[in-house]
Amino acid sequence: MGRSSTARERLLEAACELMLSRGYGSIGVAEICARADVRKGSFYHFFESKQALTIAVVDAHWQAQRAAWTAILNGPEPALDRLERLFREQAEGQRRAKLSGGAVHGCLLANLALELSQQDSRVQERLEEIFTEQIGLVQAALDDAAGEGAIPAPRPGTARSLVAQLEGLVLFAKLSNDPEILDDLWEQARLLLGTAASPALAV
Amino acid sequence: MGRSSTARERLLEAACELMLSRGYGSIGVAEICARADVRKGSFYHFFESKQALTIAVVDAHWQAQRAAWTAILNGPEPALDRLERLFREQAEGQRRAKLSGGAVHGCLLANLALELSQQDSRVQERLEEIFTEQIGLVQAALDDAAGEGAIPAPRPGTARSLVAQLEGLVLFAKLSNDPEILDDLWEQARLLLGTAASPALAV
Repeated sequence: MGRSSTARERLLEAACELMLSRGYGSIGVAEICARADVRKGSFYHFFESKQALTIAVVDAHWQAQRAAWTAILNGPEPALDRLERLFREQAEGQRRAKLSGGAVHGCLLANLALELSQQDSRVQERLEEIFTEQIGLVQAALDDAAGEGAIPAPRPGTARSLVAQLEGLVLFAKLSNDPEILDDLWEQARLLLGTAASPALAV
Repeated sequence: MGRSSTARERLLEAACELMLSRGYGSIGVAEICARADVRKGSFYHFFESKQALTIAVVDAHWQAQRAAWTAILNGPEPALDRLERLFREQAEGQRRAKLSGGAVHGCLLANLALELSQQDSRVQERLEEIFTEQIGLVQAALDDAAGEGAIPAPRPGTARSLVAQLEGLVLFAKLSNDPEILDDLWEQARLLLGTAASPALAV
């Protein structure tokens, strides 16, 4: 039973894939087990409930995403360049998902936030912590960029507005299955940062 | 059976309330009927499926929202003031929802877009049409504002970026059940429009 050692990982992966494309409510433990090729009895050996699995999926997803984000944000370039790389990479990720699997997969954390915030306080709390951490990573890069004189001192809501812009455009990219909607993301981010060259007012 | 004449409306209202708070997948026809006080047999008199009901809910929701949006956007004020009123009203709507029902209710259309885009092409198509129309309403106001010399000529993605900012901040407001997150919305929108006064660069 060599496969049993990877059963937990297969369950996490199967649940993540299913939740990315179809959310939480329409997916049952049986379907997750079938996709993961794990017996239903084994499921409850690893997770006490679908809720517990969901939190583990969210944690695993954020662990991988945070590693990718910090690898970029801790790079040697000026802070504003690192931020640009981070935002362009989010667009690239959706483009790759469409190329490899045929569909813009969107953002698992946003999907679950909209669906579960009002019905599952444990998942809600975990997602809130993760988005706070995500916004904090952006905030730290903004503080660095301001320290380097590349952007004006960020206002309190700026980091959140950047992540909101990302999530909003990812929503439209997912809805239209069109990753090119995200091509505009960095330009919008520069406007939110007050660093884009505004066209002259046509007065 | 005087109530039967309102059964369809009660079903729409019950489904809308349930989908706002819990999405689509976890809600069944039986629960919708129970909340609407309509017998399950009657449900299929009005709607051939949960999908058909969902499209009717989406249509009814957008019809009401579009009426509210156009009432503001067709007002007598300068176009930029109308746009500001529209965005401030979105924040107010979430604040009222929390005051009256205890919870920021978020955006039904965004909830369903993230959950259903990859599993229900009829709902996906309808939502895509509605968001295109919504972005078009904002675009028309931007064109008016540019014609009045109040903002620079909008770039192609500007209207979509404004609605994306709205949806992104609504997501965070819903996740944290905190409508004050939207207090910042108009300020962010002005940055995206290139009309906000940027603080001086701290060079």
